[in-house]
Amino acid sequence: MIIRRAEGTDWAAIWPIWHAIVAAGDTYTYDPASSSAAARASWLAPSPDEAWLAELDAAVLGTYHLAPNQPGPGSHIANASYMVAEAARGRGVGRAMVEHSLARAREAGYLGIQFNAVAETNVHAIRLYEQLGFTTVGVVPRAFRHPTAGLVGLRVMYRDV
Amino acid sequence: MIIRRAEGTDWAAIWPIWHAIVAAGDTYTYDPASSSAAARASWLAPSPDEAWLAELDAAVLGTYHLAPNQPGPGSHIANASYMVAEAARGRGVGRAMVEHSLARAREAGYLGIQFNAVAETNVHAIRLYEQLGFTTVGVVPRAFRHPTAGLVGLRVMYRDV
Repeated sequence: MIIRRAEGTDWAAIWPIWHAIVAAGDTYTYDPASSSAAARASWLAPSPDEAWLAELDAAVLGTYHLAPNQPGPGSHIANASYMVAEAARGRGVGRAMVEHSLARAREAGYLGIQFNAVAETNVHAIRLYEQLGFTTVGVVPRAFRHPTAGLVGLRVMYRDV
Repeated sequence: MIIRRAEGTDWAAIWPIWHAIVAAGDTYTYDPASSSAAARASWLAPSPDEAWLAELDAAVLGTYHLAPNQPGPGSHIANASYMVAEAARGRGVGRAMVEHSLARAREAGYLGIQFNAVAETNVHAIRLYEQLGFTTVGVVPRAFRHPTAGLVGLRVMYRDV
């Protein structure tokens, strides 16, 4: 598996992964009805945003997005979002992308990575983030409307890079 | 003093307040070099975003912006930002706007208001928010680059409405 920068021409391979995850509405706070164009504009936004791909034999297994978490005086802390294709789960793709993003964030000059909105129900992601050194800054109560679990907390998580 | 919805024609009165606060770079994580057009596009963004004005004798004393803190499954929690004209500080304008925003958020169907990025150095704002029932969810260390104090924490604060 290699991890490389995503280009505009990769969108056709990214969109099915992005769409399946966001339309399910159980992990990310994107609009589940997002169009391909709107999703592309956000995931492949110009610098300082970056998108990366995890690829094996020319098949896209996952993708991540790295960008300043806040503009201006908050731009030295990154935000990152990771998505793994359903067929590729359980093979370490997410872990490899988180590890890659930590190194990349450091290289790009960020001082840390912050997650603003990790649903409490997303236990696999939370466990992975904790294993990789992220800690929970706090939990905003009821901030995520899960399609089956109802209102659950959203974690803010952080680690230095 | 009245608090009313801001219209596009109010931007000329809002911009000097917005610009002075953001260019100082010591409270908000907007880009201090933001143009009037970029600031207007964000502060007066279309529904579900809302902007409000505190006005006395046709002079704008302050303004606030209320919008979903996250799209999609996080859209039931609001985010709010408040700005008071320098000449109008110490007269309860900020307090009046926060109280107004709590009522307005409730009326608009939000379940709570979250602040993502309250600089630890912004002690007057923190005290006001605490007096009005907000609690600190957590502090992201070093996440704000203060022009004189250096790297300081950013608080995430929240209250139900």
